[in-house]
Amino acid sequence: MTAPLTTAEVIAVGSELLGSTRLDTNSLFISDQLRRLGIELKGKSVVGDDRVRLGDVLGDALRRADLVVLTGGLGPTDDDLTREAVGDVLGLELSEDPAITAGIRQRFERRGLPMPEVNRRQAMVHRGARSLPNPHGSAPGILIATGGKLVVLLPGPPRELQPMLAALCAEGGAIAEHAGRERLYTVLLFTTGLSESRVEELVQPIYSTWRDGTEPISTTILATPGQVEIHLTMRSSDDAHAKERLERSRAQLAAALGDCVFATDGRSLPQVVGDVLRERHLTFAAAESCTGGLLLQRMTDVAGSSDYVTGGVIAYSNELKIQLLGVDSSLLDTHGAVSEAAAAAMVDGIRERTGADVCVSITGVAGPGGGSEAKPVGTVVIGVRVPGHPLSVQTHRFPGGREMVRLQSSQMALDRVRRMLG
Amino acid sequence: MTAPLTTAEVIAVGSELLGSTRLDTNSLFISDQLRRLGIELKGKSVVGDDRVRLGDVLGDALRRADLVVLTGGLGPTDDDLTREAVGDVLGLELSEDPAITAGIRQRFERRGLPMPEVNRRQAMVHRGARSLPNPHGSAPGILIATGGKLVVLLPGPPRELQPMLAALCAEGGAIAEHAGRERLYTVLLFTTGLSESRVEELVQPIYSTWRDGTEPISTTILATPGQVEIHLTMRSSDDAHAKERLERSRAQLAAALGDCVFATDGRSLPQVVGDVLRERHLTFAAAESCTGGLLLQRMTDVAGSSDYVTGGVIAYSNELKIQLLGVDSSLLDTHGAVSEAAAAAMVDGIRERTGADVCVSITGVAGPGGGSEAKPVGTVVIGVRVPGHPLSVQTHRFPGGREMVRLQSSQMALDRVRRMLG
Repeated sequence: MTAPLTTAEVIAVGSELLGSTRLDTNSLFISDQLRRLGIELKGKSVVGDDRVRLGDVLGDALRRADLVVLTGGLGPTDDDLTREAVGDVLGLELSEDPAITAGIRQRFERRGLPMPEVNRRQAMVHRGARSLPNPHGSAPGILIATGGKLVVLLPGPPRELQPMLAALCAEGGAIAEHAGRERLYTVLLFTTGLSESRVEELVQPIYSTWRDGTEPISTTILATPGQVEIHLTMRSSDDAHAKERLERSRAQLAAALGDCVFATDGRSLPQVVGDVLRERHLTFAAAESCTGGLLLQRMTDVAGSSDYVTGGVIAYSNELKIQLLGVDSSLLDTHGAVSEAAAAAMVDGIRERTGADVCVSITGVAGPGGGSEAKPVGTVVIGVRVPGHPLSVQTHRFPGGREMVRLQSSQMALDRVRRMLG
Repeated sequence: MTAPLTTAEVIAVGSELLGSTRLDTNSLFISDQLRRLGIELKGKSVVGDDRVRLGDVLGDALRRADLVVLTGGLGPTDDDLTREAVGDVLGLELSEDPAITAGIRQRFERRGLPMPEVNRRQAMVHRGARSLPNPHGSAPGILIATGGKLVVLLPGPPRELQPMLAALCAEGGAIAEHAGRERLYTVLLFTTGLSESRVEELVQPIYSTWRDGTEPISTTILATPGQVEIHLTMRSSDDAHAKERLERSRAQLAAALGDCVFATDGRSLPQVVGDVLRERHLTFAAAESCTGGLLLQRMTDVAGSSDYVTGGVIAYSNELKIQLLGVDSSLLDTHGAVSEAAAAAMVDGIRERTGADVCVSITGVAGPGGGSEAKPVGTVVIGVRVPGHPLSVQTHRFPGGREMVRLQSSQMALDRVRRMLG
């Protein structure tokens, strides 16, 4: 092989991966291992246990990619067809390697069992190919170099596949040896408080100038409720240069996005807020109505959150707003439970009762019922108390259904705490 | 189109789905919807935001399948290229549909925002294609009939995609209209409180007799934390017969599983418990420690849950267990916060303070820290008060990490309420 490997595709084999219950997860590990070597995963496919179709998909992948990794279909049974399909496409005959048969037989004997005859299929290797030892199972892998490309066959179970692939990608491994000097580098920017299209408007004029030229940076923008992520990726053989250039690029985008950027290291918003609270020795409590516990659940999803989360009150009914938070019933009669007055009383109530330094209240209409003309579904009032700041109460209007409104409410509450903690 | 659709492929578009962190999950839902119509998913692919490669993969899929569903890449930004790639492959020009632009503009105006100009890209439709309304987002879908095949473009976010695909697959929808007369029928049994292998042991002798013959029923057993599902599926062109046969089969399994079956209609455990509470005019409150709001969040995820959920207290710290629930500090000193005495005091505390009919308390060690030899990670004590029953407090030991322990705790608490409400 002459030119280094730069692109790869993964083909996961198995009819069970085409149903409505199971996903191929091996590709996540494979993608990560290859990226480190500068080999970019350009596509992945799932194919059932069908020799013709698998051959077809493999042929397509080999047209496009330098390296094709096939996972699964190396078992001993009739529906394990990966070896045969690869032989069909590459025109390579299979023959039994007696040394492999002996190894499989030993594996069985160690467990006091005779080797079933069907397992001899697992000792079939393509002409000129290399067998890859599998310390955790009976199916060895196979590595084939063909026409300047590499084809790798690995067993499907993650605990068998992972050490085998890691060995191929480690220094001196067959994939690492054929990778180029170039590596792929990625930096992240997580934002909140801006829509996906607003983020695009702000950063497109900047990143569009990086797309071309000798060292293009590619930009991916990714939106989830209450969060927009930017991923910047470049390929380089100069580690220090790549890191410096991506860091500079990230700083440019961060300047355009201002304080909407909450993380550049992959942390979630509950982690970012939690880390600031821990660092400043501040405690946190919340009074939730429409979010019904979602905010505190997200805060306490983070391991170690007992360092700063004391707890809170879920006051879903008006009665509990009165009984557990001391909200005045006449206030609720006059302004309603979804009001700035109620949010202020709730945040003061939780603060008095818990003594927490940072307190949040959320009250709103998550839907689908309960909306009115004045307070339609999506109307949410959030109160925040942070030491050294006056009480902050704001009314928001979130789009989407119940789940979206609840998620965005919790995200907005966390973001307002983050900004006030500055 | 003449011949009915029998095979399909899915292409998920988005460079973020090729990295090491995100998987395409839409294909699970799509596979399920198509199966019901007797259309088999034969392959799926993931492609990055790359117009040429996407065109290439689409061309390959169209050679093999009757129906190709593309998901994602319909956003307003420059890296959303699905529309363009489909136009390339099918030789169909795109033009802006002013009615769609007006709809998108209205969507923004309802939120008090001007429509960013980039969003006009989402109004581009192929010549002769049908635009598919998207009630939950700004990107409409597109349906193209071409050479006896169907190509469907849908937005990537599941909450947008799911109702759109469901409409296409419902009676009279464009995919259903082109499916054959055979349908796939499925019935469900959801259980809790049994391990996957115990469920298998109980039902295998029954379902194994249905596997062969002219009308086989296939059985899938699926485990998630605190829940094991059984799916029974058969293919038939006789609606009444299939339903009657599956119903009879389900009843046989249900008899073997007893009161571990909590739903045969797809409802989640929070829905099942909520429906019983509503029917009996009972109110619900909880005092959560290690679950940090997860139980109440799951209960209030259900629309209309304000009919029975009053709220509760998240007492993550010992101080709040004392202050908000009236737990005796000497009790915590003597028995510890993770103890049957503490769980009993917590459930009594929340009952006194809220007056709710049904009350639950959860206190435990979710990990990763906080475990001891006597109370290792996964030790969780749950207290339940239900009218007409004595107080019930039990200690459980759950396997797995933090998230697993929290999920199983909330599931067990709900199941104990369900059984006591009987």
